[in-house]
Amino acid sequence: MNHACPPACLALAHAMADAAAQVIRPHFRKRIAIDAKADSSPVTVADRDAESTMRRMIEAHFPDHGIRGEEFGSCRTDAEWVWVLDPIDGTKSFVSGSLAFGTQIALLHLGEPVLGIINQPITGERWVGTGGMAMLGGEAIRTSERTTLDQAILYTSALEQFDQPRHDRFSALAASVRFTRLSHDCYAAGLLALGGVDLLVESDVFDYDILPQLPIVQAAGGVVTDWDGEPLKDARSYATVLMAANGDLHRAALDVLCRT
Amino acid sequence: MNHACPPACLALAHAMADAAAQVIRPHFRKRIAIDAKADSSPVTVADRDAESTMRRMIEAHFPDHGIRGEEFGSCRTDAEWVWVLDPIDGTKSFVSGSLAFGTQIALLHLGEPVLGIINQPITGERWVGTGGMAMLGGEAIRTSERTTLDQAILYTSALEQFDQPRHDRFSALAASVRFTRLSHDCYAAGLLALGGVDLLVESDVFDYDILPQLPIVQAAGGVVTDWDGEPLKDARSYATVLMAANGDLHRAALDVLCRT
Repeated sequence: MNHACPPACLALAHAMADAAAQVIRPHFRKRIAIDAKADSSPVTVADRDAESTMRRMIEAHFPDHGIRGEEFGSCRTDAEWVWVLDPIDGTKSFVSGSLAFGTQIALLHLGEPVLGIINQPITGERWVGTGGMAMLGGEAIRTSERTTLDQAILYTSALEQFDQPRHDRFSALAASVRFTRLSHDCYAAGLLALGGVDLLVESDVFDYDILPQLPIVQAAGGVVTDWDGEPLKDARSYATVLMAANGDLHRAALDVLCRT
Repeated sequence: MNHACPPACLALAHAMADAAAQVIRPHFRKRIAIDAKADSSPVTVADRDAESTMRRMIEAHFPDHGIRGEEFGSCRTDAEWVWVLDPIDGTKSFVSGSLAFGTQIALLHLGEPVLGIINQPITGERWVGTGGMAMLGGEAIRTSERTTLDQAILYTSALEQFDQPRHDRFSALAASVRFTRLSHDCYAAGLLALGGVDLLVESDVFDYDILPQLPIVQAAGGVVTDWDGEPLKDARSYATVLMAANGDLHRAALDVLCRT
């Protein structure tokens, strides 16, 4: 049983999602500069300013909490409480004008996520997972009841992320499902939590990509492991991630991923 | 110079987009049945009812106009005026709960599109192209001014659509651009018209997938041909489609597509 999220932290997290959205919105579908990070992934003033804004709010309210963010690194990550921030997960969608992106916030207690938020700054859709509850816009959500691969809808962020062995494993899974769609990043995890998407697989992702999704997806009924069925280890990055709408589908997907 | 769209037809098209949205919205993110068409692509009651609704409106107002729709086929397509309807372009997104889909409506005069609409029924985003004007939500839009491939954002609907030679040509283009994203169907054409996406390529698509996009993309400054630089022929389907934000980028993309 996870530690509960303190109400003051939940309130701050909502305020941070609001503040990040206010920073991001004026830049959406404007012709802003797209910079390249060291790994050549795109970043903009909206990513940077949204994370800075959220970090300032944490420092002001909980100066002893740790912070780990996509754009500005880590501080005090050995603290009891650590915030994990991805100001824009899906920057490629953001700069394209697509709505398939979101601001991600997690709060960890001794390394365990006790709160996760995915917030879409333009539509105002806000997924929240905490205390064993998963909600979208304040309403409880549940993953899908589809239990067989031939009915399942599979999402992944990008094919470029897979090395050859993983590409082969992914392709075997893609060949077993109803259909596969791409390029939705955190938004696909939100869709999995509300029952639209059945399977989500990723490879070579960071903790800030995934941790905010766990309390949402798991409280909604989803099952999350790596591609070999092992729990995700407390780490800065994950080689493989498999999210499934339910246990039956999780077993069926593992069966294909491990047979290949 | 294209024939102008009669004001009564423009008014009807807006009313059809409204009516289709009213039909579609109650089904969004509900657990509706996903049927498979002969080509195994998914279809739902929302696709069928939205097209039926629009067809009834055309029959009531312009009984001598032709109709060509994705779900219910063609009638009077030798008429002077023909409506082309795709009630949900991006049914895979729709059933996943993603917003990357839309209702598409075109009006052809003697085979030439004089009006195009892409309407997102959930967000209310409506792209309209007619009389040389392209608009989103009533505001004029322009394609991007990025003219080099290394700056360009490339979208395509799905990789499964490409046969091997086309897959090779697509891969060469994808290797030349800033990045590639998938799974946005008509929404990507809307993003191209407003300057977020720079290149859009498709293969083996139907007239109802593409015709509604032409008056929008072209009036916004975009250039549309097939992958060999030839104009799209008046036909029921297109083997290849290339949309570029501007002439320079169009030439640069053709250069790669034709070199491969």
